[in-house]
Amino acid sequence: MATQASLPVLIGKKRDGERLEEEEIQSFVRGVMDGTAQQGQIGAMLMAIRLRGMDAVETLALTRAMAASGRALAWPPAWRGLLVDKHSTGGVGDKVSLALAPALAACGCKVPMISGRGLGHTGGTLDKLEAIPGFRVSQSPEQMLSILERVGCCIVGQSEELVPADRVLYALRDVTATVDSLPLITASILSKKAAEQLSALVLDVKFGSAALYPTPESARELARSLVSPQPPPPAARTPGWRAPGLSPPLALPCLPCLQVAVGERLGIRTAAVLSRMDQPLGRRVGNSLEVLEALECLEGGGPPDLRELVTTLGGLLLWQCGLAGAAEQGRERLGQALDDGSALRTFEAMLGAQGVPPATARRLCTGTPTQRCQVLGQASVREELPAPQGGWVQQVEALPLAHVLHDLGAGRARAGDPINPRVGAELLVAVGQRLREGEPWLRVHHDGVLGAGGRGALQAALRLAPGPPPAPPPRLAEIILPPGPPGPPAEAATAGAPPARRDGR
Amino acid sequence: MATQASLPVLIGKKRDGERLEEEEIQSFVRGVMDGTAQQGQIGAMLMAIRLRGMDAVETLALTRAMAASGRALAWPPAWRGLLVDKHSTGGVGDKVSLALAPALAACGCKVPMISGRGLGHTGGTLDKLEAIPGFRVSQSPEQMLSILERVGCCIVGQSEELVPADRVLYALRDVTATVDSLPLITASILSKKAAEQLSALVLDVKFGSAALYPTPESARELARSLVSPQPPPPAARTPGWRAPGLSPPLALPCLPCLQVAVGERLGIRTAAVLSRMDQPLGRRVGNSLEVLEALECLEGGGPPDLRELVTTLGGLLLWQCGLAGAAEQGRERLGQALDDGSALRTFEAMLGAQGVPPATARRLCTGTPTQRCQVLGQASVREELPAPQGGWVQQVEALPLAHVLHDLGAGRARAGDPINPRVGAELLVAVGQRLREGEPWLRVHHDGVLGAGGRGALQAALRLAPGPPPAPPPRLAEIILPPGPPGPPAEAATAGAPPARRDGR
Repeated sequence: MATQASLPVLIGKKRDGERLEEEEIQSFVRGVMDGTAQQGQIGAMLMAIRLRGMDAVETLALTRAMAASGRALAWPPAWRGLLVDKHSTGGVGDKVSLALAPALAACGCKVPMISGRGLGHTGGTLDKLEAIPGFRVSQSPEQMLSILERVGCCIVGQSEELVPADRVLYALRDVTATVDSLPLITASILSKKAAEQLSALVLDVKFGSAALYPTPESARELARSLVSPQPPPPAARTPGWRAPGLSPPLALPCLPCLQVAVGERLGIRTAAVLSRMDQPLGRRVGNSLEVLEALECLEGGGPPDLRELVTTLGGLLLWQCGLAGAAEQGRERLGQALDDGSALRTFEAMLGAQGVPPATARRLCTGTPTQRCQVLGQASVREELPAPQGGWVQQVEALPLAHVLHDLGAGRARAGDPINPRVGAELLVAVGQRLREGEPWLRVHHDGVLGAGGRGALQAALRLAPGPPPAPPPRLAEIILPPGPPGPPAEAATAGAPPARRDGR
Repeated sequence: MATQASLPVLIGKKRDGERLEEEEIQSFVRGVMDGTAQQGQIGAMLMAIRLRGMDAVETLALTRAMAASGRALAWPPAWRGLLVDKHSTGGVGDKVSLALAPALAACGCKVPMISGRGLGHTGGTLDKLEAIPGFRVSQSPEQMLSILERVGCCIVGQSEELVPADRVLYALRDVTATVDSLPLITASILSKKAAEQLSALVLDVKFGSAALYPTPESARELARSLVSPQPPPPAARTPGWRAPGLSPPLALPCLPCLQVAVGERLGIRTAAVLSRMDQPLGRRVGNSLEVLEALECLEGGGPPDLRELVTTLGGLLLWQCGLAGAAEQGRERLGQALDDGSALRTFEAMLGAQGVPPATARRLCTGTPTQRCQVLGQASVREELPAPQGGWVQQVEALPLAHVLHDLGAGRARAGDPINPRVGAELLVAVGQRLREGEPWLRVHHDGVLGAGGRGALQAALRLAPGPPPAPPPRLAEIILPPGPPGPPAEAATAGAPPARRDGR
């Protein structure tokens, strides 16, 4: 077959650092889906892409070909320009989606949010929502349409029909050491967003000690460090010996730049936010506890860093889809939805639409803290850790905290493992606060035994300074917007006036 | 399982350009054989090896692990030090093995030669031998032992039991654009030689317009041009982000150097010869015609370039296994075996032992040219090409000649295709000879139609100069011997006095 015969040639092109054409990438993805590509060939191609990279044009072609492998969601024409979603690279205590989706819907957006489960030390939005009795993350495209019509937002798991090529490729990337390929990451995320038929998308790219990238520069520069440079052309070349590396090196953008560029070319207005992930987001970590904190945010309260991230991401989306004249106005509009109760009412309606009994949803959303705990249940043990010495709180490290909670049952080591939603921790102190020796600083919720090792790791996560520390750096480091003149992207139609653009670089 | 769990880690190490340990390489090959390594993982590892390279220590470990995947040949203790073989990268008109194996056996060596079939434009020794009625290339290890006892040499195909890991990996390399990886090439060749339990080996690495490498430098330098250099370490590195490329770059030897180094470490005295492949070796190309030319060489005649290559390669082997005091003495000894008829008698005995009826073998080996042609058969058409103009013969290009003969049925496009042994060509002129316009210079044997395209390609292969051309460069460019003091390699026992060594670099 034509597809099969040419695949070794395509692999060889990428092996030699050459650019693949759109038809070639389509032919590869077709081979993946119809079985004419052997598993070994897919593995070799993934490694060649991982080591040679793909530029934005190739990544766009891969994203489109993957998106075309399955069914696309379909929405009423009236929603054009209003369909928005957020994607995050994952962090500790990140309950942003729970507050953001209903707040955006309360502002007039349609939010068909497709989320994931936690793996390793990062939590998953679906796990948090499943801490609420009756919540169903599995919803068909028809059910999603119905919920969006009635409520304006839903938060669901990925359907089997959406982007099947991603499932095949992801399973192989996981066992072939090719997960950390920027074009493959980008195509995996954006092919699903393309199938969602979004108008606007915001990416929350985490950096810091509890994230994949230690610094904003590393998130930006990762592209170049992951990809092998071109070998120098050999001195002697005559026919019969096809020298590698004859093509010019690919222009490789950084991860958020690549994602923004590809998203825009897909016709989705795309922005990326680089946000710090050294300490947990907010003050509660663990599925049930994070639902409680998200509810506080939806009531206009909750920790300031959570509210800041929710309103910034949401404000960008409102601006991008024309519901606000600028990102700052969008942020204010979103804060209003949190403060006036409309976001919370939308969340309650979403819970009801996704299987939570109305009385339960009502008690959770409008009840007292005690009633909320009764709905979600509580761990059998709640123990407080005393400060091992006095000092000013400089930082609480997210990564050791996440690891200890993971071991206590809050997370899963491999996909499909059960988790305990009641396991978690509450920070009883804030950065900059003075703490006396013996004063409690962390409350751990669990149903097992917190051993000496876990206790020691938690105590070591508390970083104390002898005097008042300088203000911590802001959680939001940078906003990356697509370059180019203001106006809607080529293939997207936006509602309202096109927002003015600015270049984040 | 332990093997399966760690394979992504091993792939990741090689992806990042790190050195794999012997146990890690063993674990990979074990996974390939017991099926715990998924095909996709094997493909990804092959591509990582192709793009990151392997040093001599890793290549040795891979060679050993592959050799251990199957059965090893076993020989009487008395043959220790005498077991020799040759490997060639393939050329046009290369009938060296047919003369070399019996000549070496006539000098006292034991030659369990395992050869291959032709593919693409290069001919295969097994195809040439199968032009002889009754010849059987398939011989069990027990049959090989018996033939070596009686005759001293055999030329056979690779048995199913020998190095099964090579068959699995080779099939995957073929479809994943990873054939041209020096460590994979080396491990594929040498694992089979290790399973042959050789004492000495000589490698004939071809370069030139009809070879994989255009120049001796390219064969030497290929290693560096094929392999991606290490990426620079990223500026920022903190825990949580494992930067690639932290290990020092591997020291990558050239192909013949790598093969000599790995061969020696396997306990096989190994030498490599870089030989020119711009024009055909000898003056006949095509399976039956090459048998006739090999017989001329075995009678002490034939074209000088063929005799030179046979005696050089054989002389090196006689020296390496202690049957000659130096390579030059070995070459003289081998020439003697060709001149005194002992090599031809051994060839006749080998044919008999490998299935050719004794009367046929006798007629072929001691008959007149006409009788030989009767044994081998002749193509129905033999047409001579006239020189399109007058001049001195500067070169006859091998590659277009091979391509035209291939199209006439002498070669195969894919493994398993039938071939016509009678198709071939005889050069009627030698380099430096004066040719008048219209004088025949090539006789083409075929059973079909030589079209205008083929005829034009053949005429273009004849390069004429207006005056006597300078002497062509010698066919043998370089001999590469392992570095180090004279003496037998660590694990080999050689018969007779250990030969003196010299370093070919």
